[in-house]
Amino acid sequence: MLKTSKKQTEHPQRERILKIAAKLFAEHGYHAVGMTELGDAVELGRGALYHHIKSKEDVLYDISRQYVAALVDYGNDVLKNESDPKKRLAQLGRHLMETIATYQSELTVCFREIYSLTGVRREEVLLLHGEYEHIWRQVLVDGEKQGMFRPFNPVRLKGLLGMFFYSYIWMDPNGAQGPEKIAEVFNDIMLRALA
Amino acid sequence: MLKTSKKQTEHPQRERILKIAAKLFAEHGYHAVGMTELGDAVELGRGALYHHIKSKEDVLYDISRQYVAALVDYGNDVLKNESDPKKRLAQLGRHLMETIATYQSELTVCFREIYSLTGVRREEVLLLHGEYEHIWRQVLVDGEKQGMFRPFNPVRLKGLLGMFFYSYIWMDPNGAQGPEKIAEVFNDIMLRALA
Repeated sequence: MLKTSKKQTEHPQRERILKIAAKLFAEHGYHAVGMTELGDAVELGRGALYHHIKSKEDVLYDISRQYVAALVDYGNDVLKNESDPKKRLAQLGRHLMETIATYQSELTVCFREIYSLTGVRREEVLLLHGEYEHIWRQVLVDGEKQGMFRPFNPVRLKGLLGMFFYSYIWMDPNGAQGPEKIAEVFNDIMLRALA
Repeated sequence: MLKTSKKQTEHPQRERILKIAAKLFAEHGYHAVGMTELGDAVELGRGALYHHIKSKEDVLYDISRQYVAALVDYGNDVLKNESDPKKRLAQLGRHLMETIATYQSELTVCFREIYSLTGVRREEVLLLHGEYEHIWRQVLVDGEKQGMFRPFNPVRLKGLLGMFFYSYIWMDPNGAQGPEKIAEVFNDIMLRALA
């Protein structure tokens, strides 16, 4: 099961706006989409639109935060509930690929448009990305302590995570290679890289 | 040696504009930078600027094409001059990391802004990306034929290339982990993944 924020059930109209905004931002780029286009796409006038969202950057911030926060939540659950390093990796990898496949527009915005956020919001989202990376790091370091993985190398971690993250560009969620199959191939690469 | 296009020596003023444009696009996003800002940054008036470039998309097209074309040229040289699959991989990986480190703004634009190109230009640049991927594919397939690599798997190739490509986001060209060290770690992952 993919975990998402509480907001999704509490504010359906707002979530509908975020969903459509993510699609538009992913397709045309955050800066290429104006509030007028967003209003047209969600079929709301200016007043109604601003009732649900404060600003365009507010929308970007929510999209960028929500899904990475869900990845962090899931990751912390894995650290808590599973102690075997290889099983932890398999779970994290599968969940990440499923998240990218299920919310491809949103994750495209998360990965590609983070530089479009400004000030404290950018820092906050970067911190969340850092938290997620730290969870993976913990798995590799614990695996090393248990004598199961090679000594930790931060560049290796960057490479393995990048392999997953970059898939937002090429992954076809309806293709023959669904997220589970892709996660299997990537998991095999990770285990070989860490053995 | 990094190969670049002939244009770089033939039209220094145009190349200066492209270099500054790449920096601006990488920092703020292609759609967030207007021709006025570009003119200000290169210290040229509207007339002088349009003497060197036809349009903003023309600039994006040139940045997006030029460096991937250079990667393809280098890759074809490797296929021609080196037959050992492992050496080929090491050469391709090192060159790719050096290119990303040396032209980080340009490669950020190449990888992140390809969706901002339209029509034939987008198709042409996507074809170039496809050519580059095909070179790597050829190396893996030849390695398989020589009994050196596992049977070819297209998802594995996507993963290994993504590992390199995603580094445009996190790589610090002046950091302790320079492009050569990063390429060594990634090369080790590739050889283990393909063994």
